[in-house]
Amino acid sequence: MPDTAIVSAVTWAAGCDALHIVDQTRLPAALVQLSLTELHEMVEAIQSLRVRGAPAIGVAGGIGLAVIAMRAAVASPATFDAEVTSAAAALRRARPTAVNLAWAVDRVLAAGQVGGASPAIRARAMQDEAAAIFDEDVAMCQRIGGHGATLLRGGMRVLTHCNAGALATAGIGTALAPVYAMHARGDAISVFANETRPLLQGARLTAWELGRAGVPVTLLTDGMAASMMRDGRIDAVLVGADRIAANGDVANKIGTYGVAVLARHHGIPFYVLAPTSTLDPQTPNGESMDIEMREAQEVRAHGGVQTAPAGVAVHNPAFDVTPAALVTAIVTDAGVFHPPFHFTD
Amino acid sequence: MPDTAIVSAVTWAAGCDALHIVDQTRLPAALVQLSLTELHEMVEAIQSLRVRGAPAIGVAGGIGLAVIAMRAAVASPATFDAEVTSAAAALRRARPTAVNLAWAVDRVLAAGQVGGASPAIRARAMQDEAAAIFDEDVAMCQRIGGHGATLLRGGMRVLTHCNAGALATAGIGTALAPVYAMHARGDAISVFANETRPLLQGARLTAWELGRAGVPVTLLTDGMAASMMRDGRIDAVLVGADRIAANGDVANKIGTYGVAVLARHHGIPFYVLAPTSTLDPQTPNGESMDIEMREAQEVRAHGGVQTAPAGVAVHNPAFDVTPAALVTAIVTDAGVFHPPFHFTD
Repeated sequence: MPDTAIVSAVTWAAGCDALHIVDQTRLPAALVQLSLTELHEMVEAIQSLRVRGAPAIGVAGGIGLAVIAMRAAVASPATFDAEVTSAAAALRRARPTAVNLAWAVDRVLAAGQVGGASPAIRARAMQDEAAAIFDEDVAMCQRIGGHGATLLRGGMRVLTHCNAGALATAGIGTALAPVYAMHARGDAISVFANETRPLLQGARLTAWELGRAGVPVTLLTDGMAASMMRDGRIDAVLVGADRIAANGDVANKIGTYGVAVLARHHGIPFYVLAPTSTLDPQTPNGESMDIEMREAQEVRAHGGVQTAPAGVAVHNPAFDVTPAALVTAIVTDAGVFHPPFHFTD
Repeated sequence: MPDTAIVSAVTWAAGCDALHIVDQTRLPAALVQLSLTELHEMVEAIQSLRVRGAPAIGVAGGIGLAVIAMRAAVASPATFDAEVTSAAAALRRARPTAVNLAWAVDRVLAAGQVGGASPAIRARAMQDEAAAIFDEDVAMCQRIGGHGATLLRGGMRVLTHCNAGALATAGIGTALAPVYAMHARGDAISVFANETRPLLQGARLTAWELGRAGVPVTLLTDGMAASMMRDGRIDAVLVGADRIAANGDVANKIGTYGVAVLARHHGIPFYVLAPTSTLDPQTPNGESMDIEMREAQEVRAHGGVQTAPAGVAVHNPAFDVTPAALVTAIVTDAGVFHPPFHFTD
């Protein structure tokens, strides 16, 4: 890997003998690449957030199942079936709320259901399907980058929140895809990264991956964005999404909604960039979205150091909802959508 | 001290034989009271933020000088003069930008300039002046609490940022004074505390002191306030101030301005509470305020744990400016001021 490179969460290796991921729990201190061959390692890596980000988890789950299938290809059909089925179940359970994970695992599993075929042929079909999922993710990122770049101009300074970068995908990310696209073609673009408490994905991951790729990046605490905007130092906001309702309401990392309000107050465009798979036409609006509440200890400690009274009450939602009215445009691999939003199946 | 008590930064002890402070660098893990008798200990305590908060630093500096004077009272007039003058200079230098510190030290020093009097009499006059500064600070807090409470109602849930509580004063604080006043008279009031990155005064100090006093408090990361407001769970914002310009523009801890924008967006009153000494009629507006920029390492790490890439660029202003247009009212010990603000000497 050259000194300046975009580092994605998952990489593909011919032969599909291992799941290759960056251990994101070691960032930013060290870049550690893991080659996982055992099911229990893959499950642990997903559970422990060594690989995270909805697109990346899906790709990892799909490749992981294909790796297990390739190794079981020499077994009897009955043994092959048992191993693959139980591996699929274990991978799905690793993060039950990650819809991309179940979707990719099921897709690879289905590709192997070839009536009458040998385990070797079925495993090969599963490998091809995992490769397809990987390739589609890479292409999805590229398309988001191309569409998103049409909204930006060289010299712009953009603000992002959390990590929707290469480390959340197998490619160049979602929210950061236009940044990488512009940087690659020589347009000046710089990024302000909100550190994104409580889990500091902006400090640990976004600041790291942009720096590694040679994109100018400045780290902010979450409370600093407002005065940066007032001082005229932010030209656009780029964020990812965990789910987008039919009306364009956006669920994303806690803190996103506040950034959207600040952007509107200062007349700064607020762009949401996410795969088409994030669109959820079945959910009419943000009111019907359940917000996951997380452990108090994440807020009471900072980087593992206790910083608040041990027993203090904490409110720790994982996500917030930004109403569509505050969203300037939604960018997916299918194109740029302007309000009023109305996503259908 | 009872189990439930308001813990102030500085306490007064008859005889003035030591400066009694809470070591705020040990909070929230441990409540450690320090009794400082040596000048170098006092200087170190102020420099290391063992005592912090503009009002508290002033009171501590004044008492500190009186303690030195009382001990030098048995010396010759020449030795007394030398010791007191050099102690005053050292205390003033401990935090050169803290105007309250120089003001209090100079006031105690001047009280000892009694022509022809013995060191004992002069030291006693300095002790009386330090006691007066202490008493005035306690009374200032009480008055802010009384005035501020007229803006609130029982059952309210208020949001605060940073620490402008008892731990910033010798009394019941400034921004938190109305909270303590209402709690003392039996009105239900609860507080949401922004943790306030990078130095986490909200998590370490505000959450601790409110919990200790028996006031219901919930800790938030700075990015969570927006969705709390949208959910209708915040009735008012109470913040302190480092400086207030003639037109009502308010310099306060970084992040305050963003909270003000969010409060306006959600129709929530935004109150600034501070001593009259914070008013700076010589500064016409926020444009003319210099903002202190602090070390990048404060944002890159906490408690010795690196949480961002070692060399990443950081923007770390200590304060931001909230324009008067976003301030619902300014509360000082002199009363409640509504816009348009126009503070004069």
